[in-house]
Amino acid sequence: MIKPLLKAAALLGASALVAQPALAAVPDAEVVSAGTAYIFNTLLFLIGGFLVMWMAAGFAMLEAGLVRAKNTSTQCLKNIGLYSIAGLMFWVIGYSIAYPGFAEGSLGLFGIAGFPYAMQGVSEADTGTGYSVASDWFFQMVFCATTASIVSGTVAERVKIVPFFIFVTVLTGIIYPVVVSWEWGGGYLDSVHGFSDFAGSTLVHSTGGWAALVGALIIGARAGRYGADGKINVFPASNIPLATLGTFILWLGWFGFNGASQLAMGTVGDASDVSKIFVNTNMAAAGGVVVAIILTQVLYKKADITMALNGALAGLVSITAEPLAPTVGQSILIGGIGGVIVVFTVPLLDKLKIDDVVGAIPVHLVAGIWGTLIVAWTGDATFVGQLVGVLLTAVWVSAASAVVWLALKYTIGVRPSEEDEMNGLDKAEIGVEAYPEFAR
Amino acid sequence: MIKPLLKAAALLGASALVAQPALAAVPDAEVVSAGTAYIFNTLLFLIGGFLVMWMAAGFAMLEAGLVRAKNTSTQCLKNIGLYSIAGLMFWVIGYSIAYPGFAEGSLGLFGIAGFPYAMQGVSEADTGTGYSVASDWFFQMVFCATTASIVSGTVAERVKIVPFFIFVTVLTGIIYPVVVSWEWGGGYLDSVHGFSDFAGSTLVHSTGGWAALVGALIIGARAGRYGADGKINVFPASNIPLATLGTFILWLGWFGFNGASQLAMGTVGDASDVSKIFVNTNMAAAGGVVVAIILTQVLYKKADITMALNGALAGLVSITAEPLAPTVGQSILIGGIGGVIVVFTVPLLDKLKIDDVVGAIPVHLVAGIWGTLIVAWTGDATFVGQLVGVLLTAVWVSAASAVVWLALKYTIGVRPSEEDEMNGLDKAEIGVEAYPEFAR
Amino acid sequence: MIKPLLKAAALLGASALVAQPALAAVPDAEVVSAGTAYIFNTLLFLIGGFLVMWMAAGFAMLEAGLVRAKNTSTQCLKNIGLYSIAGLMFWVIGYSIAYPGFAEGSLGLFGIAGFPYAMQGVSEADTGTGYSVASDWFFQMVFCATTASIVSGTVAERVKIVPFFIFVTVLTGIIYPVVVSWEWGGGYLDSVHGFSDFAGSTLVHSTGGWAALVGALIIGARAGRYGADGKINVFPASNIPLATLGTFILWLGWFGFNGASQLAMGTVGDASDVSKIFVNTNMAAAGGVVVAIILTQVLYKKADITMALNGALAGLVSITAEPLAPTVGQSILIGGIGGVIVVFTVPLLDKLKIDDVVGAIPVHLVAGIWGTLIVAWTGDATFVGQLVGVLLTAVWVSAASAVVWLALKYTIGVRPSEEDEMNGLDKAEIGVEAYPEFAR
Repeated sequence: MIKPLLKAAALLGASALVAQPALAAVPDAEVVSAGTAYIFNTLLFLIGGFLVMWMAAGFAMLEAGLVRAKNTSTQCLKNIGLYSIAGLMFWVIGYSIAYPGFAEGSLGLFGIAGFPYAMQGVSEADTGTGYSVASDWFFQMVFCATTASIVSGTVAERVKIVPFFIFVTVLTGIIYPVVVSWEWGGGYLDSVHGFSDFAGSTLVHSTGGWAALVGALIIGARAGRYGADGKINVFPASNIPLATLGTFILWLGWFGFNGASQLAMGTVGDASDVSKIFVNTNMAAAGGVVVAIILTQVLYKKADITMALNGALAGLVSITAEPLAPTVGQSILIGGIGGVIVVFTVPLLDKLKIDDVVGAIPVHLVAGIWGTLIVAWTGDATFVGQLVGVLLTAVWVSAASAVVWLALKYTIGVRPSEEDEMNGLDKAEIGVEAYPEFAR
Repeated sequence: MIKPLLKAAALLGASALVAQPALAAVPDAEVVSAGTAYIFNTLLFLIGGFLVMWMAAGFAMLEAGLVRAKNTSTQCLKNIGLYSIAGLMFWVIGYSIAYPGFAEGSLGLFGIAGFPYAMQGVSEADTGTGYSVASDWFFQMVFCATTASIVSGTVAERVKIVPFFIFVTVLTGIIYPVVVSWEWGGGYLDSVHGFSDFAGSTLVHSTGGWAALVGALIIGARAGRYGADGKINVFPASNIPLATLGTFILWLGWFGFNGASQLAMGTVGDASDVSKIFVNTNMAAAGGVVVAIILTQVLYKKADITMALNGALAGLVSITAEPLAPTVGQSILIGGIGGVIVVFTVPLLDKLKIDDVVGAIPVHLVAGIWGTLIVAWTGDATFVGQLVGVLLTAVWVSAASAVVWLALKYTIGVRPSEEDEMNGLDKAEIGVEAYPEFAR
Repeated sequence: MIKPLLKAAALLGASALVAQPALAAVPDAEVVSAGTAYIFNTLLFLIGGFLVMWMAAGFAMLEAGLVRAKNTSTQCLKNIGLYSIAGLMFWVIGYSIAYPGFAEGSLGLFGIAGFPYAMQGVSEADTGTGYSVASDWFFQMVFCATTASIVSGTVAERVKIVPFFIFVTVLTGIIYPVVVSWEWGGGYLDSVHGFSDFAGSTLVHSTGGWAALVGALIIGARAGRYGADGKINVFPASNIPLATLGTFILWLGWFGFNGASQLAMGTVGDASDVSKIFVNTNMAAAGGVVVAIILTQVLYKKADITMALNGALAGLVSITAEPLAPTVGQSILIGGIGGVIVVFTVPLLDKLKIDDVVGAIPVHLVAGIWGTLIVAWTGDATFVGQLVGVLLTAVWVSAASAVVWLALKYTIGVRPSEEDEMNGLDKAEIGVEAYPEFAR
């Protein structure tokens, strides 16, 4: 990093040459040069990308706060590990699967699809695209990581580290990219059914949700969670402020998740749209929180904090399939119904003896389906088209996840010994307790 | 921070002049097209907005760390709830009150002032403003939430959830927006007294501070806090690193709070001004920290961490009324005096038996007044004009808050039973303990 | 979110209508006016700056999580204090030393070099530079603070607050700025040896590392750490999720650290380069994590979470000297070797009885040297030139640090009494326990 004066001088010289237009016909307020638009588009990907990357920390804190203290270190390791694996796998193969048309030829710079280029630097000349290819890749990669984060929460406290990481490897390298290829990659769902999923209620959240649900079914509940007599034993969260922090981080990151999914900020219209997305995203989350608080206060005479946190997240997932088209009022309503979903689906899963440690299935799967279907009302899609997308994703992700989880179960094994589970995974798997001086 | 329309108009006028080709008089380095300026202005609101949104997490962590463990879940719930309520209320009515001139006609798209449009999407065509109306609304909304966050800290550990949320509803829907209308809305304080409050030392921080002070007086101290014999019982903070994290979050968010209150980044001059604001904001906080550490080390032979954290915040509040005009040296001085205020006002409140759990009154009210008055030295305002603004805000916010707190006290009641308070609000109000495995 | 190529094509078509003056020689996509470039460059400094500022919170959380509970408040205070002192010292004198050519004349607006201007506001007219001088100063300042953060981790739990802050004052005011002047300031290393250190593997991280190593040697190990019989007593970290949070914060901040060290975003090429840096930075960290997990799993049959966290950080430090030139594959490799360094150097230090509480010496010093030397392979530098830079930094920082630490040791003393150390610094130095309700 040489002090920038010399560099800046060169830069000023160059751009001084090219600044003046003379096209009176074009409204002045719309004038943005292609070079400037390129930088704005790239900047949107970068800002959106680092905000979504930050969501990895949000999931880590949410999950670390909601598990029992004896499994907290494991949950931290799983989260930083899955984020890393997701990045590597999306580079090795995922991106090529997700965007087949973009992984060949001049853009085929990532992973095996462009194998000769696999070790080459991220694109040099990509002005034809209107944005930096590397910035787009970064933004797409962090979405891939999000999908894996969803799974780790549901199956927490009872899956060993090695099989978990193997599952993540397949999920981020193959299962998720295939879903993406159908829609954002311009494939079947996009071209045939007009399926619409702006930022991923189905592609990201339901995908993670199905993988989590199938995992929960195959792996089974935590030891002692459901008594033989039908009694449901509550395993209380160990650290509520940590879970609260995680939720706030996710809320913040979601401005990048939804806002930057506009994919462009180089025109006045795009900048305006990104802004509307910010507002709608925020208000859907607010709706989810307020509804969850009111419902639990009315139903249980207590305002349940974990329901409020999951209400925020369900509101966010609900608006993710279409955060631009709805009015603010519609967004509050859509998010608020997300809050309703959480309050009623969490106990329902317990009745079905499906053990979802952090409530990821209600938040990401059920609210994800809700958010996707309601686009038929607010957006530019049909109910049938949306349903096809939901069902196709359900079938593929469930089947593929089942194959992987079952293969792991019957080979290296997925669960720790019951003794290890009772003592906590931190002792057995990590060797480092999360709170050696506090926990009883 | 005058509402940006006038400014934007000037800006559009100016840049309209320079966007065209043959104006040799305009320095080349100033050439920014109106479309590009629109995107930059919008981007400033969005980045500033998400940084200030993040402050909601900062207040949550600060307060969760400073209360006792038995009230931590409640404090988390109050914070995520108040942020949500603030967004909803600012949409329903707050924005219309705060910016009456902007909530009618083509811009009347929010809440009741533009009732027929209340459910309509956030503005489509707003190129006349020089920025996206939705981005501005988002930025204004997060300021509204900040005001409520201040109150929750002072009255923590002894207010039930329902009356607290009702107070927040009135504060964010009416009390705060009225104050804003006087100044940023172009009203009485702005037009008659030349009152100057760049980013809200008075409008946001003192407003929150007065509401908190009146609340503390009407609600009374926590049970057992002040002994009959005049003894002050210290209730130690339960989680110092959490409070530290909260302070760092607030510090980070303040770059958005003050920096984006420039309200424009579409000219070279505005970008330069935003940068100066970043530097001055940072240095005022640094001054507050160093002064608080030195003072407590000298006075008590210990460097008090909570004083250092509040010193940072007081430094930030102090510079908020005018973060652009001062030199760096002046900023350090102004922030440093904020640190002095904290060290001396915190024990003073205890002598007066005003129970402020997190020190929000010294930080937001007293330092907010200090920061507002000193603008007569550093900025473009008179001492009398500033004093009128401080006093008018004091009278309105105190009176209105007193009415609401008293109404709540004598109807549904504000405080939990003494038994519930001793057992902690988490058990009585939430049903979820914050740290079930740790806390004694 | 359909893949943006189609959209971008349309967008390019649209803007192609309005962009062209009549300069056929200049590619359309390159058209960015000087004023627009100025704003983009400034914005890069501001975004990069607030991300690196946020790293101060990352170090605070990482260190607060890795020390024992009885020293946590002290660690929090040291971190917020050092960030504040760094800002003040970089203003008073540091920037003038680091950038001698820029601290005089019209740019001499900071600190003593431009003494008459020391109290003046940050630059008014700096269009000649192509960016706001204040934004650049802000960005440089947060780097200075990072250097100090590194030291506080290594020498934690056994240094009194006052001598620690005095060391930080000298480090940030003189020792670090001198190193910077040699390279980024355009001095000896840059002009004579073609030394290359893009974002500071040596200038920031090794500098902090040498200061930490010399401190650890002079101050000695924590009481009871190394038994007389050669036994190494492990003092377990008190709060693993806090350390995990700190690592995620640092990872996030590193996008600013490396990305904004491009120092410009006002051209298509610069925006593309910043994007590549984001990708490479992320992938190096991912490589470090995965390697650390696999190695500890293989070597110890446990996946060590603190090794994984330090693996991420070592990966980040390793790529910092040249995050632009390498391919993605090279970046993963470089970061992965950072992970190897952590896994083998941490136990090595213990064998040498060098007590590094958080592992900062492996992460910042050893990986910093590795990252600097490997630029001879990936970047535009010679092995000898890089080695000279490493050695010169080693000699200067070690010698200067030794002088300061020794002077402190033999005057006011550096260590607390053994009784105070056993009881924890929080009681002796701060008077506020970090977790009064939890810790045993």
